[in-house]
Amino acid sequence: MASKPSIPKGTRDFSPSEVAKRQYIIQIIKSNFEKFGFQPIETPSFENSDTLMGKYGEEGDRLIFKILNSGDYLAKADATHLESKDSTKLTSSISEKALRYDLTVPFARYVVQHQNEIEFPFKRYQIQPVWRADRPQKGRFREFFQCDADVVGSKSLWQEVELVQLYDTVFTDLGLSGVIIKINNRKILSGIAEVIGASDKLIDFTVALDKLDKIGEDGVKKEMIEKGISLEAIVKVQPLFNFTGTISEKIDKLSDLLSTSADGMKGVEELRFICDNVLKLGLESAVLDLDVTLARGLNYYTGAIFEVAPPKSVAMGSIGGGGRYDDLTGIFGLKNMSGVGISFGLDRIYLVVEELNLFPETVTATTKALFINYGDKEAFYALQAIQKLRAAGIKVELYPENAKVVKQFQHADKRGIPFAVIIGEQEMESNVYSLKNLKTGEQISVDFEKLKSSL
Amino acid sequence: MASKPSIPKGTRDFSPSEVAKRQYIIQIIKSNFEKFGFQPIETPSFENSDTLMGKYGEEGDRLIFKILNSGDYLAKADATHLESKDSTKLTSSISEKALRYDLTVPFARYVVQHQNEIEFPFKRYQIQPVWRADRPQKGRFREFFQCDADVVGSKSLWQEVELVQLYDTVFTDLGLSGVIIKINNRKILSGIAEVIGASDKLIDFTVALDKLDKIGEDGVKKEMIEKGISLEAIVKVQPLFNFTGTISEKIDKLSDLLSTSADGMKGVEELRFICDNVLKLGLESAVLDLDVTLARGLNYYTGAIFEVAPPKSVAMGSIGGGGRYDDLTGIFGLKNMSGVGISFGLDRIYLVVEELNLFPETVTATTKALFINYGDKEAFYALQAIQKLRAAGIKVELYPENAKVVKQFQHADKRGIPFAVIIGEQEMESNVYSLKNLKTGEQISVDFEKLKSSL
Repeated sequence: MASKPSIPKGTRDFSPSEVAKRQYIIQIIKSNFEKFGFQPIETPSFENSDTLMGKYGEEGDRLIFKILNSGDYLAKADATHLESKDSTKLTSSISEKALRYDLTVPFARYVVQHQNEIEFPFKRYQIQPVWRADRPQKGRFREFFQCDADVVGSKSLWQEVELVQLYDTVFTDLGLSGVIIKINNRKILSGIAEVIGASDKLIDFTVALDKLDKIGEDGVKKEMIEKGISLEAIVKVQPLFNFTGTISEKIDKLSDLLSTSADGMKGVEELRFICDNVLKLGLESAVLDLDVTLARGLNYYTGAIFEVAPPKSVAMGSIGGGGRYDDLTGIFGLKNMSGVGISFGLDRIYLVVEELNLFPETVTATTKALFINYGDKEAFYALQAIQKLRAAGIKVELYPENAKVVKQFQHADKRGIPFAVIIGEQEMESNVYSLKNLKTGEQISVDFEKLKSSL
Repeated sequence: MASKPSIPKGTRDFSPSEVAKRQYIIQIIKSNFEKFGFQPIETPSFENSDTLMGKYGEEGDRLIFKILNSGDYLAKADATHLESKDSTKLTSSISEKALRYDLTVPFARYVVQHQNEIEFPFKRYQIQPVWRADRPQKGRFREFFQCDADVVGSKSLWQEVELVQLYDTVFTDLGLSGVIIKINNRKILSGIAEVIGASDKLIDFTVALDKLDKIGEDGVKKEMIEKGISLEAIVKVQPLFNFTGTISEKIDKLSDLLSTSADGMKGVEELRFICDNVLKLGLESAVLDLDVTLARGLNYYTGAIFEVAPPKSVAMGSIGGGGRYDDLTGIFGLKNMSGVGISFGLDRIYLVVEELNLFPETVTATTKALFINYGDKEAFYALQAIQKLRAAGIKVELYPENAKVVKQFQHADKRGIPFAVIIGEQEMESNVYSLKNLKTGEQISVDFEKLKSSL
């Protein structure tokens, strides 16, 4: 191989400092998941194709990475599709497995498969990579981690309250003040459509409404009309185009607007319960916002819908999202299992924390001191100290070779190691260590106990 | 989907307690890797096929999971191979990516690709899953984690010394006393072959010698003769069939046996350096053993070879292995990069720790207390306490629904939650909490501070 090797597009290598920073975020998410009573599960990277296919729509099916059967896969290939060179139809006869596309469908599969071992309500979290054959672009990768927490087996709205708190504590722990937790409810959206007599155009309506920030009131109205929504209907929802006030005031407005829709009023009631309790219990650093344009995953969610926007100073899309889905496991034959969950967008959170310079310096701190290697006798002496320091939990290293001293110091410098320990003949004789602070250049002679306490 | 869903053979779901136990082992490995100065990297789950293919021999190539190209993959398929239904030859034209088979080849690729950003010697660790289309059997899976630590860019034998210490500290921390760290050297093996005049039969010789434990001296000799190794040659290495004594005595025997082989004597010298220093520095709980039958990865290693056997009380194969490879990155065009590394076998270590009952009880401890839900008013009151307890890092949960109290207690019991907190009208009025120990049944009335300190 003559040319430098590379990795597939849309994938990434993570350097030590990147791994450390990602782990820092994951650790904060994980510890909060556990504080809230969520338990970890892990599922295989690939699932049987029929577990995944048909769950994400046609576009989703296309974006699922399929694994070629092992061995003589053509022996079992469908002859007709092979002859007609029909890639789409051939796939199922030469590929039985596929890489997971998200963590929700595998979770639903897990719940159904293990329903007799699980104690419901089941609060699980899962932090694992997923794969999508999407066109790579800035911030969008073909392999990325999802961090999901879901509760399955209870319709209690206290869970929505706690999930908002969970977002708040995670982002507070990350030092990310002022994230906006947007909440809406699928029933509000269908209530609105019902009131305006355009239930069959619900998706068109919400997709248009969702663009309010981007294309403005006129643009949204224009799009709605183009989609066949009547002007009369649009006039009815005029309050939604200038939807301001406190959350409580907004809910009152919705209550007026949706008074004729049973579904809509159920949504108002749910929203009120969740928002009231969240606000009375209080958030640490996040801001709760009721956003009726929020319509993510419309086909999926049935109750609360969440989306988290980064602090206003950062221009970036959502860093989290989630909601309630009344029939999580129905696709695998287990009915009446309501689920509600949220997800953290690791890659974007990383970019936000980086942009705001919020990674603590200690995150990437690795080795505390490099022991300079003056030869085998000195190295052995050094390793005796190193062994004891490591046993005390201190990260120290011996430079492996008796290289030029200046090279060894350069190595410490490039690695960002703050101290060097020098042990030559003299130090060995007097049973001391020369400890050099590589930032200040200051060097002191210490005994082992002092060395240990200094590091 | 009517039938219960399942997962592909050779893969696993991990339940909360299994994840917790795996994480416990991984955390101990990780923290020791870092104490020894290794830094984490992560590489993509799939690599370009040409990065992986041809690196693991023909059998390895077959066991690599290939990913089908996205879109109309048949459009670019080789027509001849398609027509002749030649699966093996067709693969490269319909699949450009493959799941990684181990962590070593991706690491070599990483080093070459990022050589200008890396400060050598580079001590990296990597803990990620790998995939092999192997026939699943007890303890062998198609998806499993590897935990590798390698140093690249230095030939210093101090690294071998430290890697033995690293094995020792990890297994000591796991409470696994008496693991046997077997060491050998590839140069010893080739020296032996040279001395007996059967250099061309080195692999046959070592494969046979490796079976000494299984088929005995006679069996090994029989196999050697069948493979065309002369009786005269076998007589020359008679000392190897009863190779006892201290490590130092064994090395002396090898020194006699290999005195005419330059390669062999180099191996003796290396072994002596490593073993002498390891023994003088001392191991905490592991036992070092020189095992001349150890020949794993023969085509790969060029110096030290390591393998770790579990304590003698457990019947199980190796739980770790590694060695020195002088030309790690040559396959990707970067010459003269010596590497040395070790690997921990997570799945087998798990089984050993389980069998010896060494997982601390706290590992699977999750939620500390369940707050019983008596209705929305009480639940709100409970959440006020829960919020403060979580802020103090205590894992507590509210039962999400106002279900029958006996059902809520059963939930705590099944989940293994040790305490319940009861808040009814009475408690709310007197601003106290009833804390019930679910093991003893004892129930006390406490204020918030006492509640917090009790949990």
